[in-house]
Amino acid sequence: MKIAFLFYEGMTALDAVGPHEILCRIPGAEVYRVARKAGAIQTDSGLVLTADLSIEEVPEVDILLVPGAGNAATLRQYPEVLEWIRKIHEKTKWTTSVCTGSLILGAAGVLAGVKATTHWATFDRLKDWKATPVKERVVEDGKLITAAGVSAGIDMALVLAAKVEGKLFAQAIQLAIEYDPAPPFDVGSPEKANPMVRAALLSRMSARFERI
Amino acid sequence: MKIAFLFYEGMTALDAVGPHEILCRIPGAEVYRVARKAGAIQTDSGLVLTADLSIEEVPEVDILLVPGAGNAATLRQYPEVLEWIRKIHEKTKWTTSVCTGSLILGAAGVLAGVKATTHWATFDRLKDWKATPVKERVVEDGKLITAAGVSAGIDMALVLAAKVEGKLFAQAIQLAIEYDPAPPFDVGSPEKANPMVRAALLSRMSARFERI
Repeated sequence: MKIAFLFYEGMTALDAVGPHEILCRIPGAEVYRVARKAGAIQTDSGLVLTADLSIEEVPEVDILLVPGAGNAATLRQYPEVLEWIRKIHEKTKWTTSVCTGSLILGAAGVLAGVKATTHWATFDRLKDWKATPVKERVVEDGKLITAAGVSAGIDMALVLAAKVEGKLFAQAIQLAIEYDPAPPFDVGSPEKANPMVRAALLSRMSARFERI
Repeated sequence: MKIAFLFYEGMTALDAVGPHEILCRIPGAEVYRVARKAGAIQTDSGLVLTADLSIEEVPEVDILLVPGAGNAATLRQYPEVLEWIRKIHEKTKWTTSVCTGSLILGAAGVLAGVKATTHWATFDRLKDWKATPVKERVVEDGKLITAAGVSAGIDMALVLAAKVEGKLFAQAIQLAIEYDPAPPFDVGSPEKANPMVRAALLSRMSARFERI
């Protein structure tokens, strides 16, 4: 099982690292961390990750995961990356995204007519790519699996691990990472959040999001 | 607010990256990713992180976070890192850990007589360091805050963010990372897990854990 995580400058680290911690545990997984160019990748939180391979070195994988970013328009200036996604997607068993990674899938042309989700603050932008926005944490449509914002990648990766290796194995991974969440507040979705907190955050985040 | 994440070879990436995604959003946070030596850090999942600074360059911080590892004994061969933790802890406002990071805090000599937690599979080893094991996801005892396995660091960091910047701010971060968890299975703690899955995992993990 070949699994590629697409890395890029300005990506959100947790979008990739949450699912990475899960999918790397699948027996026989060959995990590729891939970017336009191999080397250091500055994420949007200051943390520096490393891409082992360039997109030219990875012609085909079983699973592709595209993380999001505070400004997912970052990749607009690199059409060769969008083209790589489009080509890789032709032969994947599953093409997946976390957070605004789905807008990148959209820009790559693989979401038209597909049910998908993204970060709540950019939800309507899925329509820019003719996707059908669905308000669920993990949305499956054929081989496309998209997750909501940042932390939703963990739930998505467990769903995917169950498809690849079966329920019991996915449960073992969940227990290994002790994923028995206990958030201190029940405010993690826009519907549950304090309206003032939500409005302030949306205004700050919208200023950063360019249309990809 | 100076915040140091201790990085080391063989660490578990998500232990640090979950809390990093939260704590880096605290206004005015100066985040240091610190290791024995600055540079590339190979985590236990193959992902390579980068430490910006060496321990010599960081004499004092407000918050220290120590992540765990599949084999937390890794740091036993570097007493200078344990000594750095002990010294840094003297002046922190909060000293924190995720997963088996608490065993490293123990080895550094800062857990004696303290209530703490760790990954469920190494729970009893807290007693090696005269800590009092408490079966909770996030355990606070004075300025020491320890989290259970891997994913519990996300809950811990939100608890800590609320202490540093107030509840509303922590809630805004929780909404920003859309942390409204929906695990596909309810098996993330040893009490809830299938006993066969738990036994198989414990046996496999125990083989890897050396006593630190």
